[in-house]
Amino acid sequence: MPRRIIGFLSDFGTRDYYVAAVKAVIYGMCPDAEVVDISHEVTPWSIQEACYVLSCCYEDFPPGTVLLAVVDPGVGTSRKPIIVQTEKYFFVGPDNGLLTCVAPKPYRAWEITRVPGERKKFSYTFHGRDVFAPVAAFLACGGRVEEIAREYGSPVDKGFLEPRIEDSKIHAEVLHVDRFGNVALNISEKHLEELGRPRGLVLKIGGVELAVQFGKTFGDVQPGELVAYIDSCRYLEIAVNQGDASRRLGVKPGSRLEIIFK
Amino acid sequence: MPRRIIGFLSDFGTRDYYVAAVKAVIYGMCPDAEVVDISHEVTPWSIQEACYVLSCCYEDFPPGTVLLAVVDPGVGTSRKPIIVQTEKYFFVGPDNGLLTCVAPKPYRAWEITRVPGERKKFSYTFHGRDVFAPVAAFLACGGRVEEIAREYGSPVDKGFLEPRIEDSKIHAEVLHVDRFGNVALNISEKHLEELGRPRGLVLKIGGVELAVQFGKTFGDVQPGELVAYIDSCRYLEIAVNQGDASRRLGVKPGSRLEIIFK
Amino acid sequence: MPRRIIGFLSDFGTRDYYVAAVKAVIYGMCPDAEVVDISHEVTPWSIQEACYVLSCCYEDFPPGTVLLAVVDPGVGTSRKPIIVQTEKYFFVGPDNGLLTCVAPKPYRAWEITRVPGERKKFSYTFHGRDVFAPVAAFLACGGRVEEIAREYGSPVDKGFLEPRIEDSKIHAEVLHVDRFGNVALNISEKHLEELGRPRGLVLKIGGVELAVQFGKTFGDVQPGELVAYIDSCRYLEIAVNQGDASRRLGVKPGSRLEIIFK
Repeated sequence: MPRRIIGFLSDFGTRDYYVAAVKAVIYGMCPDAEVVDISHEVTPWSIQEACYVLSCCYEDFPPGTVLLAVVDPGVGTSRKPIIVQTEKYFFVGPDNGLLTCVAPKPYRAWEITRVPGERKKFSYTFHGRDVFAPVAAFLACGGRVEEIAREYGSPVDKGFLEPRIEDSKIHAEVLHVDRFGNVALNISEKHLEELGRPRGLVLKIGGVELAVQFGKTFGDVQPGELVAYIDSCRYLEIAVNQGDASRRLGVKPGSRLEIIFK
Repeated sequence: MPRRIIGFLSDFGTRDYYVAAVKAVIYGMCPDAEVVDISHEVTPWSIQEACYVLSCCYEDFPPGTVLLAVVDPGVGTSRKPIIVQTEKYFFVGPDNGLLTCVAPKPYRAWEITRVPGERKKFSYTFHGRDVFAPVAAFLACGGRVEEIAREYGSPVDKGFLEPRIEDSKIHAEVLHVDRFGNVALNISEKHLEELGRPRGLVLKIGGVELAVQFGKTFGDVQPGELVAYIDSCRYLEIAVNQGDASRRLGVKPGSRLEIIFK
Repeated sequence: MPRRIIGFLSDFGTRDYYVAAVKAVIYGMCPDAEVVDISHEVTPWSIQEACYVLSCCYEDFPPGTVLLAVVDPGVGTSRKPIIVQTEKYFFVGPDNGLLTCVAPKPYRAWEITRVPGERKKFSYTFHGRDVFAPVAAFLACGGRVEEIAREYGSPVDKGFLEPRIEDSKIHAEVLHVDRFGNVALNISEKHLEELGRPRGLVLKIGGVELAVQFGKTFGDVQPGELVAYIDSCRYLEIAVNQGDASRRLGVKPGSRLEIIFK
């Protein structure tokens, strides 16, 4: 059997033993798996941010990959552990909207009814290790989903954050600020195409108006200047060439902006 | 031979080349090994914190795993490089109490007398790369411990931090604060069982008394409220549901608390 | 074929999906590769710092390793994607001086003319994923460089930062500050040998003079004291035993110092 990849996203951080415990369980159950860290530095409990990060990279993984995504503010409560199965991937995690906001439709949803493996005592606070890791390992090693789960009709589905259009203005929201300070907005390439591929835009933030030109990449403007472009995840992003746009604009994930396209 | 896992814990951080150099040496000597990062963000030189992190996850690794643990304030001095061998694992690192505080007794201790591999020049400041990595690779690839080490009777053993009980009060210490701000105390599930599984507790910190109820998980209290529970490492932990308990309590690793159980 | 290692250095950080997307592409194209993170926390756009980090560890990787190094302020502009081939390694990344400052001479340089794999749409801002990852995967899986690149005579070569010697004083620069606060200077072991292996030095920073003794390792001085030594990368480094030298000296990467050796 070819080596199966498990892409692993969480808000666990890398300071503690949480990520290691999940991997230890996986390698114990499926030694030929390869666990690839997506990120563990999602803002704690932020399903919205996890959704953006996962949606930007899951399609780069080869078919057959198991995508383990654990941002789980409701751990140990009645929220269900689920699997979302698409043509190419299994998504494994808690039923809180994270998996459904990423997985392309149509998908099949499954409620996990049996945890594979030999663990005898389960914690109430670490289902990443005790529930989701063994399930991911089982699927990665070729286990059949029917053996550990039953079809589940109604997973939580909050959709993905969409912009609001009103009187020719667009009310957008910051989806993500990356390490470089680049600001990704909830306006997709598709939205921009519907708007006729505008060549510039005016941002309104806190009463101030800022004109920003479109480019293809950072280097299309001088160092220190603002530029708008389609990012590598196909969203509208605002950057400062070799600078920090989030600081320049004074925004963070969740901040709201008004945009007028030109 | 099945793929052998090397679990790797250090205080090296991930900004520098230290972790990569250790892995490069390992993969050069034992290409079929799989190095699993435990954490490299242990507070520099904190053997106590490294001990907590390693003790919380080593048992999740499959039998045969080599646990490479390098927190080494005495690097290049006379402290010995050792191997601690248990029924299921090899622990490799400096003789400063880190390995013995984690490895379950009875164990066999070995002093490393020969560094396998072909390195000709050894640094004085980076035995993680020059001594411990080749030893871990050698053991992971099935090398016999007798060929590189001799039995060693008296490794440094400081034990694990225990709480002090006095006049029905418990003087506890903060073992660890995780990414979420959850505060792990040096009171194990076993201690709590000996105390008759109390249902609540009062924390005394700096003259202030705080009543905290027991729960099983964060969601057992309202967001923003304090809760005490047995954590996934089987220690007493204090959290704020979707909040930061270490900030609320004003504590960090090493902080002392007085606890009265109810 | 034995498992081929890809050492991966970038300034992408670990918070975003960038590192994962690169690895996902690599594992999709070359499932038997093993990607080893070098660091992704290079200061954004700092070719100098990336050069130091890569130069300190690339030789620890086994022959045949592909070293993927992406610090790319000019992404999407006319700077070329290149491969630098040495006796033992392939270096893959943008032509901005990063690869040439590390790769030992003589090397062969290649301009990438064809991106292997099946990607149909290329981004302008993420050549790490769209160009360099497939090239690294192709080479790691045994692909011939001639099939995707043509010889390239003149890669950007800025060399490596050298100290300036003037009237018996040495004007040095801080190359790197590591997690522990240790300060690496651009004075190599070779420079020190040419100076007759001095036994002590005086640092002049902002009008203040500080005498520092040479040692072999941190523990050669008392905790809290300054010590100078040859670091594990063979550069002159200043540390405080169990303390933070960069804070003590008030320096950071790029800071200039005057040194008089004794």
